[in-house]
Amino acid sequence: MKVSELSRRSGVPVGSIKFYLREGLLPAGRATAAKLAEYGEEHVQRLRLIRSLTTLGGLSIAATREVLAAIDEPQQLNTALKVMHYALPGPSCDKKNGAGQDGEGKTEVTAASEFSAEVDSLVDAMGWQVSDESPYRGALAASLEELQRLGVEYTATDLIPYARLTADAARLDLDQLDGIEEPMALAERAAIITVLFEPVLALLRRLSQEDELRRRAALPREGAGT
Amino acid sequence: MKVSELSRRSGVPVGSIKFYLREGLLPAGRATAAKLAEYGEEHVQRLRLIRSLTTLGGLSIAATREVLAAIDEPQQLNTALKVMHYALPGPSCDKKNGAGQDGEGKTEVTAASEFSAEVDSLVDAMGWQVSDESPYRGALAASLEELQRLGVEYTATDLIPYARLTADAARLDLDQLDGIEEPMALAERAAIITVLFEPVLALLRRLSQEDELRRRAALPREGAGT
Repeated sequence: MKVSELSRRSGVPVGSIKFYLREGLLPAGRATAAKLAEYGEEHVQRLRLIRSLTTLGGLSIAATREVLAAIDEPQQLNTALKVMHYALPGPSCDKKNGAGQDGEGKTEVTAASEFSAEVDSLVDAMGWQVSDESPYRGALAASLEELQRLGVEYTATDLIPYARLTADAARLDLDQLDGIEEPMALAERAAIITVLFEPVLALLRRLSQEDELRRRAALPREGAGT
Repeated sequence: MKVSELSRRSGVPVGSIKFYLREGLLPAGRATAAKLAEYGEEHVQRLRLIRSLTTLGGLSIAATREVLAAIDEPQQLNTALKVMHYALPGPSCDKKNGAGQDGEGKTEVTAASEFSAEVDSLVDAMGWQVSDESPYRGALAASLEELQRLGVEYTATDLIPYARLTADAARLDLDQLDGIEEPMALAERAAIITVLFEPVLALLRRLSQEDELRRRAALPREGAGT
């Protein structure tokens, strides 16, 4: 198909397609004439993945290129998924897009040693196999530090009950990838589940909180903590 | 204490304190002279809550005023908590601060009837007591609609296993409020747990995903879906 057809099929404007070609995110089509190229289904699919990663995942062009390169390697798919997983934007909104709230002494990813140790303890206690290079270790330590500044302190032990729930959630997440064999489709789905399912879970928690609040309010409550 | 001392104690600049006074978020101090006022511990605590709600929770001044008004009412605390819960910024980063990604036809809170019905079914299936006015119903429907546009569709049934996990999380959340009797302290803690604990949970899920990915990669895997 010609670039115009590729644009129609993928919903991506021709200008953006040319940009992705120049940036090396999209492989060149098969040259048919001096200025013409023929594109295939793989280009449609690749464009969808690029859009998922950049528009919805919020990845930079450089990070997207890295993810795509990993997916293209014939080696294990897991490396690609890991690269992508680490490249995806973190859950804290102002992590990568620098929304920069009020800015009062925010230490972005300080990974204060005190809380890094708590995160390490938690990972150990859970028996989790997580690379030392995972950006989420530092991000979690930074979140815990921010909470401490607000007077709410969590130790590894406090977090274990929550970690058990997220481990269950991760099993459900990975089950969603079962049966998807094509690497590009798998990467796309993994990105969607990792990033875009996050608000779904957060909203389910908000709904659950209201229910739980109502249940507890309905119970007779005499004296503190009973 | 004088306003300078209040500023030192709370870490809030004098200019901001005066702004909160003018906006009616902070009650006036006890007048001691023409231009002087005396502030108490309740002002320090109230300032902390204002800062939590505005800076960290991302609430507007109007929303903060609404939450504070609800907390000040001598009626049930649960109303205050519900008002606050609904006023808190939603989990989707670009919901209230209008970060507006790429903007390609994003329908913010359309609450497409199709997905609203799925959300209703889910709430019913879980037996959740959630107000029809909850903003999280519509936000969840909108999230599901966005996922559908990306080719990933979830029904109420698909979400039930996740909803069970968030119900457990909500129980852990509410347990954290046990024993806090003072309304303002309770509201502050509830806001922190609702909003600021969200990235902690999301990060725990990311760590869990890596662990689960490694576990499954280590397993012999022959054929799809086995």
